[in-house]
Amino acid sequence: MVNQVQRVDGSWQTSKSDSSGASNSGESSKESSRCSTPLLDADRSDRLREKMRKRMESGDPWFSLEFFPPRTASGAVNLISRFDRMGSGGPLFIDITWHPAGDPGSNKETSSMMIASTAVNYCGLESVLHLTCSNQSQETITGYLTKAKQLGLKNIMALRGDPLGTDWEDEEEGFNYATDLVKHIRSEFDDYFDICVAGYPTGHPEAQSYAEDLQHLKEKVDAGADFIITQLFFRADTFLKFLRDCRAIGITVPILPGVFPIQGYQSLRQLVKLSKLEVPEEIMEVIEPIKDNDAAIRSYGIHQAVEMCRVLLDSGAVPGLHFYTLNREVATTEVLRQLGLWIEDPRRPLPWATSANPKRKVEDVRPIFWASRPKSYIYRTQDWDDFPNGRWGNSSSPAFGELNDYYLFYLKSKSSKDALLKMWGEELTSETSVFEVFTSYITAQVNRGGHKVMCLPWNDDALATETNLLKDELEKVNRRGVLTINSQPNINGKPSSDPIAGWGPAGGYVFQKAYLEFFTSSENVTALLKVLKKYEPRVNYHIVNVQGHNMTNAQDMQPNAVTWGIFPGREIVQPTVVDPVSFMYWKDEAFALWIEQWAKLYEDESPSRMIIKYIHDNYFLVNLVDNDFPLDSCLWQVLDDMFELLDAFTDGLMS
Amino acid sequence: MVNQVQRVDGSWQTSKSDSSGASNSGESSKESSRCSTPLLDADRSDRLREKMRKRMESGDPWFSLEFFPPRTASGAVNLISRFDRMGSGGPLFIDITWHPAGDPGSNKETSSMMIASTAVNYCGLESVLHLTCSNQSQETITGYLTKAKQLGLKNIMALRGDPLGTDWEDEEEGFNYATDLVKHIRSEFDDYFDICVAGYPTGHPEAQSYAEDLQHLKEKVDAGADFIITQLFFRADTFLKFLRDCRAIGITVPILPGVFPIQGYQSLRQLVKLSKLEVPEEIMEVIEPIKDNDAAIRSYGIHQAVEMCRVLLDSGAVPGLHFYTLNREVATTEVLRQLGLWIEDPRRPLPWATSANPKRKVEDVRPIFWASRPKSYIYRTQDWDDFPNGRWGNSSSPAFGELNDYYLFYLKSKSSKDALLKMWGEELTSETSVFEVFTSYITAQVNRGGHKVMCLPWNDDALATETNLLKDELEKVNRRGVLTINSQPNINGKPSSDPIAGWGPAGGYVFQKAYLEFFTSSENVTALLKVLKKYEPRVNYHIVNVQGHNMTNAQDMQPNAVTWGIFPGREIVQPTVVDPVSFMYWKDEAFALWIEQWAKLYEDESPSRMIIKYIHDNYFLVNLVDNDFPLDSCLWQVLDDMFELLDAFTDGLMS
Repeated sequence: MVNQVQRVDGSWQTSKSDSSGASNSGESSKESSRCSTPLLDADRSDRLREKMRKRMESGDPWFSLEFFPPRTASGAVNLISRFDRMGSGGPLFIDITWHPAGDPGSNKETSSMMIASTAVNYCGLESVLHLTCSNQSQETITGYLTKAKQLGLKNIMALRGDPLGTDWEDEEEGFNYATDLVKHIRSEFDDYFDICVAGYPTGHPEAQSYAEDLQHLKEKVDAGADFIITQLFFRADTFLKFLRDCRAIGITVPILPGVFPIQGYQSLRQLVKLSKLEVPEEIMEVIEPIKDNDAAIRSYGIHQAVEMCRVLLDSGAVPGLHFYTLNREVATTEVLRQLGLWIEDPRRPLPWATSANPKRKVEDVRPIFWASRPKSYIYRTQDWDDFPNGRWGNSSSPAFGELNDYYLFYLKSKSSKDALLKMWGEELTSETSVFEVFTSYITAQVNRGGHKVMCLPWNDDALATETNLLKDELEKVNRRGVLTINSQPNINGKPSSDPIAGWGPAGGYVFQKAYLEFFTSSENVTALLKVLKKYEPRVNYHIVNVQGHNMTNAQDMQPNAVTWGIFPGREIVQPTVVDPVSFMYWKDEAFALWIEQWAKLYEDESPSRMIIKYIHDNYFLVNLVDNDFPLDSCLWQVLDDMFELLDAFTDGLMS
Repeated sequence: MVNQVQRVDGSWQTSKSDSSGASNSGESSKESSRCSTPLLDADRSDRLREKMRKRMESGDPWFSLEFFPPRTASGAVNLISRFDRMGSGGPLFIDITWHPAGDPGSNKETSSMMIASTAVNYCGLESVLHLTCSNQSQETITGYLTKAKQLGLKNIMALRGDPLGTDWEDEEEGFNYATDLVKHIRSEFDDYFDICVAGYPTGHPEAQSYAEDLQHLKEKVDAGADFIITQLFFRADTFLKFLRDCRAIGITVPILPGVFPIQGYQSLRQLVKLSKLEVPEEIMEVIEPIKDNDAAIRSYGIHQAVEMCRVLLDSGAVPGLHFYTLNREVATTEVLRQLGLWIEDPRRPLPWATSANPKRKVEDVRPIFWASRPKSYIYRTQDWDDFPNGRWGNSSSPAFGELNDYYLFYLKSKSSKDALLKMWGEELTSETSVFEVFTSYITAQVNRGGHKVMCLPWNDDALATETNLLKDELEKVNRRGVLTINSQPNINGKPSSDPIAGWGPAGGYVFQKAYLEFFTSSENVTALLKVLKKYEPRVNYHIVNVQGHNMTNAQDMQPNAVTWGIFPGREIVQPTVVDPVSFMYWKDEAFALWIEQWAKLYEDESPSRMIIKYIHDNYFLVNLVDNDFPLDSCLWQVLDDMFELLDAFTDGLMS
């Protein structure tokens, strides 16, 4: 099952040497000596400034999205879901503001640092972390930057921040201006970070003059900033004049206009007050009469932003647009759609979402088991300090992280306890109640209580499009207690551009072996093992219970590649494997989810909890691979045979 | 097979348990951590004694072949061709006798040591090197053994050898018996070598008695010998009695009967004299009357050997047969065919012949360029002391060995200068003469002089069966000066058991991208480059001349996998790649072959030599890969387009 996968950098840009006989660089050949990891996308590990340069060269405008850290843990869970959704439109990067009052550098799930880390590591988004320097010691700042680097963050937006009191006095030793912070980053961390600084199209409110403020901006760039994002503005001309003025004094780095789609009367007033900006009369004239009509204001805001962005893009001087989202989704997404910049590109570099942490850039194999829980896989492998050959599919050497931090917010269900009870049953009466929950999830039909089952402990989202192809078969087996949690159909050479199954560069072909993973009773397993003898060596299986009693026909515990791709001019890529060793770690997690997410919804000793506990203690986790990928999957036939054998046995007992 | 996996003290123990509960070693799970090299054939790296054990367990009788070192370099070239041919019938091992008078441990191309090394390293045959110890110092023997080990030899037949003079005196410090040699090997090299010793079914001629000789044999085994090969004999009963007697005194190792198919009157007499054996009367009675009829004697010899072998095999006490070939092919092959032991198994573990050197056992990728010259590839990479992940397809780090030792016997043409001149032309008059040689080779038609062209400098053998499928196309383009030296058709998922294209374990599928490699003129290359623009990115190309002027559209110098296989329960295997880096090394070799093998057939300054020299200096070496393997190859269309463009240009000039 392949989950929603967002593309970080929209394009498959690859530099081609032309036929005129250019010779290839030695650098790339050095990289290619690690030949088990073909460079599917030479871009994906590039620096942000390099990505910008390439997009500018090819005249391909981008967008970026600004978010602020949430106040609560459940707000964080929601924001991360938003990252996943908004990431699918292809932002070049997102940025997370720095909230000095919110313990921004801490390990709290709501801190700026943790939110940015989550965006990079778990959502695979190129991210810029804001950092303000006023009233901070050099040691504190260095500490933040060191931590950011350790977490895989690569980009900093260097800001002064507001003074704490009203009286502003320069500090001899400390940071007085963003320029000081830029210099500090460059002196302490050399060229490691890409640095962004803020530009003020109408001048900084505290600056003596517009001209002086431009000079300050030039100083920030000269100190080592790589690009500029501007404060918001309301007229395209304001930005375009600012841009010309910057260029006139020798500022050559990319300057990205900060766009603020008006989303409501109150938020506009608040922002204007905070930023000391004036809203142009022509806008106030439209808004004042409709100030109590939120929908109308939002509609106008979208219209106004689209118009302004069109002028900016048409000027040819704007390489990308930066959006102040206010953590909201609808307005910005709509503006981007109307501009034609929101592109849900089905072309994924790999079938799973790659992490944006540079440490993981060579990772190109994952076990299939965590397909629906990629954040858990990344979390549990975060301490692996190396991905030799990018091949961690077989995980016999490095240890998987424990599930001690089980309740870490990004592993939690997005749904409330109340919602979960409605979906999974306020009261369970038998194992069959559980079968029905699975069946409702598969069919997307309401359960007995009239609620749709939108997630299961092993699947935080609705069924993947690809799995939908198997819906009828899945429904049938779940009704009979084959509780499926992961599956993929076989694929025999679909184009890599296929909207559902495709991934990787153009002109390639992707393949899959059929895969099915489920919990089922020990009675079923006994019958299944008999049946599987008929399917040797076509079907590989691993069958394990919570105690670790394991049955398999895998030879020499070798991994089985179940997803692979063939591309022009590349080695074979095999990003998904069924790996016997990591399956044993996954087994622990998969069984634990019964208890942690489901059983604990119910009172201790309650019948409902006892039923889930019984399944946890007695069922087996089974995975099946049909190796004969060019033929129709035989896995359904395997299960049919199993049911037939069980029926024959039952009939025998009855007669 | 059902594996039990348990977690013990943080580590994984794997144990195979079927209904009978046999246990599996932990080694295999350790092995599988190197996940880029799937264990295609768990047997191939096994020790000889382990291979014997497995074959005995499965009741699968084997055969082995004994050869002696040749006297001349050209004899060596012929013997190596024989190894290749006789290796295809599936001997479990071959053995090479030790000729004390022939500088047996030297680097001479005819030495026992070098012939055994060639069999192991270049022909991929499990080999046993004989070693005699009489009149040798311990240091000399240790030197031989050390060298053998360094060369990748793993098995020694430990023999006493004949005393130099007629007077035999025990040496205090030296070796008096094979037992001493066995002890020495075990004490100096521990368990590294598998050791074979000789058994004498009628007693050693110098032994006091048959019983005493049996005791000596028991001593050799007790000293550490792994198996026994017997001296030749003429009656099955002789061997079977000997076998019973060995077992009776506690010799438990495998005992292989030495079979000598009578191949001629003189050779029989000589052998009998040498081995002090008596030929039974019933055989002499048949042979004497036909002693001048070689064919009749050979025919009888085959008949007699087959009859005797049948009795041996039917006894159920003989696990394998050892053949004294006298370096001849026909009689032994025929005996083996009649016994049903000669099996040209189309199932290859990889599409190319794997080397039997244990150092290379993890090698699983090779560049396609040396497909017709595998011995040259092995020779040039022999100093690579490591095959990390078995992946040397991309060769940017290790250096290829130079071609200084170009005339090394195993790189030489098998044909004489005279034969080559007949095939490649006594006198060349133009480039077209060269085109005709290539065309004759492709079509297997006689050339102008009435001779078939059986080889080319780049292809020591006739066209591969697979290439034959492309014959018509190849003929057409060679006639027009596209001088093809390597090609493979596309294959889109044929069963791994396919007799022509198949390789690897059963139940898998093999794939290929179409590949074509040729020399052609710079005019053709100019047109080809224009045409190739239309085939982006479907076709990858590398075009290079002898000076190294290189044109390619390969991205980032990455290798392109052109042969791969998908197997049950395995990772993907991709044994053949087009690797841009190694192509530059191959280029040197490919161009050099024009001069070394062809031009030098002719007088200095002769027109013939100048023509070859001109081609060497001015032609380009081109390789093309059609990445779209599911479609019919477009490479012929590419060449058609090139010819069309050239014709249009010529027409333009004419009109």
